[in-house]
Amino acid sequence: MNREEFFIYLRERKALIDERLEFMISAPVRAPNTIIEAMRYSLLAGGKRIRPILCLAGAEAVGGEIDSVLPVACALEFIHTYSLIHDDLPAMDDDDFRRGRPTCHRVFGEAMAILAGDALLTEAFAIVAQSGLIHRSKAEKYLQVMYEMAQAAGITGMVGGQVMDVESEGKELTLADLKRMHEKKTGAMIRVSVTSGAFLGGGKEDEISALGTYGDHLGLAFQIADDILNVVGDKKLMGKNTGSDASRGKSTFPLMLGLDESKRRLEEEVLKSLEALSCFDEKADPLRHLATFVMEREY
Amino acid sequence: MNREEFFIYLRERKALIDERLEFMISAPVRAPNTIIEAMRYSLLAGGKRIRPILCLAGAEAVGGEIDSVLPVACALEFIHTYSLIHDDLPAMDDDDFRRGRPTCHRVFGEAMAILAGDALLTEAFAIVAQSGLIHRSKAEKYLQVMYEMAQAAGITGMVGGQVMDVESEGKELTLADLKRMHEKKTGAMIRVSVTSGAFLGGGKEDEISALGTYGDHLGLAFQIADDILNVVGDKKLMGKNTGSDASRGKSTFPLMLGLDESKRRLEEEVLKSLEALSCFDEKADPLRHLATFVMEREY
Repeated sequence: MNREEFFIYLRERKALIDERLEFMISAPVRAPNTIIEAMRYSLLAGGKRIRPILCLAGAEAVGGEIDSVLPVACALEFIHTYSLIHDDLPAMDDDDFRRGRPTCHRVFGEAMAILAGDALLTEAFAIVAQSGLIHRSKAEKYLQVMYEMAQAAGITGMVGGQVMDVESEGKELTLADLKRMHEKKTGAMIRVSVTSGAFLGGGKEDEISALGTYGDHLGLAFQIADDILNVVGDKKLMGKNTGSDASRGKSTFPLMLGLDESKRRLEEEVLKSLEALSCFDEKADPLRHLATFVMEREY
Repeated sequence: MNREEFFIYLRERKALIDERLEFMISAPVRAPNTIIEAMRYSLLAGGKRIRPILCLAGAEAVGGEIDSVLPVACALEFIHTYSLIHDDLPAMDDDDFRRGRPTCHRVFGEAMAILAGDALLTEAFAIVAQSGLIHRSKAEKYLQVMYEMAQAAGITGMVGGQVMDVESEGKELTLADLKRMHEKKTGAMIRVSVTSGAFLGGGKEDEISALGTYGDHLGLAFQIADDILNVVGDKKLMGKNTGSDASRGKSTFPLMLGLDESKRRLEEEVLKSLEALSCFDEKADPLRHLATFVMEREY
């Protein structure tokens, strides 16, 4: 797969995921309109769909087919979207803009934003359970995925990382603490995205373990890249005010290591993630391109 | 089972559930202390454990044993507790007291309360998934329970009802709307508590359907009783200020129907819930006592 083919791949995968997300959030249910609108607003706000793409690419890397993995991939985006809505709330990061648009609570009010987040998280598990009921012969595998997703999203993962983030504001973190925070806050969900796709796609234990290592390094790479963009990117690229981390007294990699060392670390993490893929053939090319792509975002 | 035996039963069940909840929230995990403390604070605040008790009693009614159902019963209490924490938030009901103690956000701050709710909801699904992985031969059943719990907790159930509640403040509801709101907000979780216990306990389809009907009427009875208590109860009994619904312009049964008619409806719902149990033998006695108990709370 060359670079051009990769960009076509990305576009096609994103379209596939967007279409399914759109379908999932439009299926008629006996629920109040407002909450559906609030969920739609944030879910279909034009995210990059990194987590579901990683999930599908994880299945492909081990030779699995992607159709039966697609609902789980979408569930990961539901969880990601819930976390963004709650992180943006006034009591948390108090952000007014996300992806270039007013945040959920700015449009629908705080109560509805809290509930929209709650609902997206709940729906995510409904989606995985339903998917497992359709593929009954793999029921146990879906329970395993559900368990790992919950672990990655909960106190040992994303929520735990967000707690560390909230508690660290205005305090000086060590580099080890900063890494641990990001491992939990974004790393755990990145990791489970790849591994759950590979697991449902029929991957062997050592393949899944290697993809877990890939996910760990990729997750950290994403975070360092985000921190760098936050310092040097422009508002248009990020869809939110840049430099906001610093003004809020948040610890970031550039703040602790300087810009050059941060870029070096970013490269190091990307290389480690590529190394983890060494036992895979060209079916893992999308995962390889995804990793190098992180380095190439415009700074 | 006579009245006295029922009260012993209630005490024993509550002790069993409290002990397991305490264990679940104390198991060492790699998570920040603060969030564990916030979750503990609300989870172990001395709730009546109605939902887990209903779940265990549902299993017993169909002749199932309760040990393997206990984790799912506890997961229902995790979900209930999350909903209380989020409902109490300033952006929602803005309540300062719950069960006679300051609410979670009053003690731990708003950010931590939002996250504690998110974490409890997430853990609930982890618990059910883990339980299904332990009882592998019943994996499909656990997926089914997970799906139904998510439906009962999400936009078609509890969250949907809370949205209707938020949107109805200061507006006049019809009696049909008020009933529909409560069916979603509290009824759906009450129903799924009984039916999931019966389903995992090996109940037949018609038994589970009958217990669903029981749950529907019981849920409504609980709500009418709560509304009545809110008007006439005293602060000590409820652990929060009474009359708070009225002062907030919330629609309630006593407000719409008057106190006497509300009490008559309460009795009617209790009787209907008992009727639904007519095909069950004495193993459903705890469920019968639970229903009549609702009528007997002190007004």
